[in-house]
Amino acid sequence: MTVLSGDYEDNIGLATDFYELTMASAYFHSGMKDVVGEFEMYVRKLPNNRNYLVICGLEQIVSFLMNFKFTSTQIDFLKSNKLFKNEEKFLEYLAGLRFTGDLWAVPEGTILFPNEPFLRIEAPIIQAQLFETYILSMVNYQTLIASKASRIVNSAGDKTVVEFGFRRAHSPPAALFASRASYIAGCKSTSNTLASFRYGIPTAGTMAHSYVMSFEDEIDAFKKFVVVYPDSFLLIDTYDSIDAIKNIIKHGVKCNGVRIDSGDLFYLCRKIRKILDKSGYGHTKIMVSGDLNEYTINKLMKEKVPIDYFGVGTELVTSRDDPALNGVYKLVAIKKYSPHDKEKYEIIYKMKKSVAKITFPGPKQIFRIMKNGKYYKDILALQHENISPAIPLLKQYIKDGVVTINLPTMPEIRKYHEYQMSILPVKFKRLEPVLKIFPVYLSKELKNAIESFK
Amino acid sequence: MTVLSGDYEDNIGLATDFYELTMASAYFHSGMKDVVGEFEMYVRKLPNNRNYLVICGLEQIVSFLMNFKFTSTQIDFLKSNKLFKNEEKFLEYLAGLRFTGDLWAVPEGTILFPNEPFLRIEAPIIQAQLFETYILSMVNYQTLIASKASRIVNSAGDKTVVEFGFRRAHSPPAALFASRASYIAGCKSTSNTLASFRYGIPTAGTMAHSYVMSFEDEIDAFKKFVVVYPDSFLLIDTYDSIDAIKNIIKHGVKCNGVRIDSGDLFYLCRKIRKILDKSGYGHTKIMVSGDLNEYTINKLMKEKVPIDYFGVGTELVTSRDDPALNGVYKLVAIKKYSPHDKEKYEIIYKMKKSVAKITFPGPKQIFRIMKNGKYYKDILALQHENISPAIPLLKQYIKDGVVTINLPTMPEIRKYHEYQMSILPVKFKRLEPVLKIFPVYLSKELKNAIESFK
Repeated sequence: MTVLSGDYEDNIGLATDFYELTMASAYFHSGMKDVVGEFEMYVRKLPNNRNYLVICGLEQIVSFLMNFKFTSTQIDFLKSNKLFKNEEKFLEYLAGLRFTGDLWAVPEGTILFPNEPFLRIEAPIIQAQLFETYILSMVNYQTLIASKASRIVNSAGDKTVVEFGFRRAHSPPAALFASRASYIAGCKSTSNTLASFRYGIPTAGTMAHSYVMSFEDEIDAFKKFVVVYPDSFLLIDTYDSIDAIKNIIKHGVKCNGVRIDSGDLFYLCRKIRKILDKSGYGHTKIMVSGDLNEYTINKLMKEKVPIDYFGVGTELVTSRDDPALNGVYKLVAIKKYSPHDKEKYEIIYKMKKSVAKITFPGPKQIFRIMKNGKYYKDILALQHENISPAIPLLKQYIKDGVVTINLPTMPEIRKYHEYQMSILPVKFKRLEPVLKIFPVYLSKELKNAIESFK
Repeated sequence: MTVLSGDYEDNIGLATDFYELTMASAYFHSGMKDVVGEFEMYVRKLPNNRNYLVICGLEQIVSFLMNFKFTSTQIDFLKSNKLFKNEEKFLEYLAGLRFTGDLWAVPEGTILFPNEPFLRIEAPIIQAQLFETYILSMVNYQTLIASKASRIVNSAGDKTVVEFGFRRAHSPPAALFASRASYIAGCKSTSNTLASFRYGIPTAGTMAHSYVMSFEDEIDAFKKFVVVYPDSFLLIDTYDSIDAIKNIIKHGVKCNGVRIDSGDLFYLCRKIRKILDKSGYGHTKIMVSGDLNEYTINKLMKEKVPIDYFGVGTELVTSRDDPALNGVYKLVAIKKYSPHDKEKYEIIYKMKKSVAKITFPGPKQIFRIMKNGKYYKDILALQHENISPAIPLLKQYIKDGVVTINLPTMPEIRKYHEYQMSILPVKFKRLEPVLKIFPVYLSKELKNAIESFK
């Protein structure tokens, strides 16, 4: 009986699909343990209606890689599995395993498109294989949510979006990562106290219907609340929103803002704004919530409904209209180092050719080309190519198992993303899918490499 | 820089929406800290196309409640928030807070319908309010996934379903809970090694495309694998599934099973079954995977495509066709105990009357009535009512902060659920929504209680 408990970090080695372990063992027994694999993570297509991805979750991957290990309890657990019961040597090898490879990635908050690698792991193939599941799960989710949040924040224009999704996220830890990704993509604050503690995201929150209901009179609940929190937002739709606002005014209750969580927001916000304005409550802000998404916010904004804050939960933290990012982690090359000279190696490009599921071979770099201060096109090239003038997007974060970069703070990531959004051509920010997706070209060398597999 | 790290359990007190804390403080300052609140969790409507819910996640809630506390680091963190900087007394109160109330719930694996409470917390209102967010997030998710898994397992008839969703779950910890819920609802095994370690779920897994690609020849990859794992499933669609199977046979590679992850499964499985059968590989099992759900499985089963195992991932662990369960946690009553006699109290029923968002007042019990060995109807009644012959579904798990029941093991929960499914009338197991939902009636006393609010 554990919560999601303290032993999670200790058990990080087991946070992997079982087949990664059987493959690792097969590599071990095939004399391939010193072969280096290069794996890239990317998506083949964007989620429905999306025109870009906001890459997110890298900090957690750096931490995962640097902490990766199997404890003796885990090794014992594996020994108890019939597939590993005679695998003394392999399990001994696992017990000593630490990340000794390289990590290349685009900075969190970067905007990417299909077939562009988010990150690349270069490591002995057993390690690289074992990391697959955790990396995919973490980066798929945070990127999914950052990409959704970006659409929601865009649709709200100059109004503020706050993230209220904890209760509908896929378990409490998922809620944490959702808060992080949402903040990076432009949400201003979160209802999640633990996310505030962990990531320094500002907290937001008003009151629940149950609070109002626990008092005999709604107005009594409001009065008691503003004694303690004079700047709070009052939740006015427990019984009747219009009655509530009239009562607040009648009793002269201090009221910095109101929140409306149900009903016809088009009608209610206009009516309430009018009542507030003519009663000396012109300073009182209006927040709305209740199954909002980028489409409903867009409609409210287009009709200039007087709203100051949007509280967005379920639709954001589950990416409800398309709740999975199909990121994949594919072998693009193997390297065989000379046993005599560690600088010498043979590199063999790899490419999967299943129907409709192609991988591009070789370790790659993304070169972003600008025009008039905006993104113009990307060129996907082999890592060693040099294309200029262009911005190479993948940077090295870890070399030989050592972190080589100071990771940015949360406000820095958020600011970087904000800047990236400002130079993304505006047509890609529309809620509808563009007719022509952002142009990602392949370099001539990469094309030749692909051709060589035919 | 933490993974999802060890400090999660320690920080359990902060795993709550910020407004639960501001409300707690308002209760504290309104002289209401000894008022007892009764909160029930339920859903107002089922997810799309579903005809029932499989309730799941209770074990994690018992653990959460029994471990609930704020550490001094957390209290310091709250003190640093401007809303709590002058709240010495309240924070001191929080520092000493432990769960002292009661928990009633239906056993995990129980089948429920809209408006039926999954669980009820009875505790001093500050506690009960603080638990809301965590309870909703955890139980919403596990119930969502168990309910989806149940449909998928049903659609597969006598074939085996294995859960492969780790990489597409909403972060690694969500994957853990998805494995747990899927196993309870009838999946046979999981790819998630940590879920096997934590919950004792059998592991499953074959090999990845990258493993096959890391060898020069596909057949070489297979040969090396079966040396180590002679009973393994070979992944045959990296290049061409038919070529692969012919090569396996030609080289006489031992082959307990094959997995196909792409292409036209209707065509490929039939063709491959035929080739296997006529080549002395009649014992070789066929597993399919790749964005399967209850609908695609249903089609494959209806056409009697020769498949033995279904590996289901993304669609299952994200409940892709409806990725959020809108469970709510509502105040149904408050109790005011006499300061002189702890046995005496006044109970005040509560009911929310927002448009289209009604709560039924009072603490309740669900009475399930059987006919011919199957579910016949449910009666939602007040807790103190006695309806017979009927099975009262809510049981007490915690009394005055002490666990009063031995929690069932995972195999016990799975078995209990299997039995419940066997007595659910078959029409509710269809993939399409039934015309008439399962009948849940309100008792006369409950109707009177509702009437009294009008």
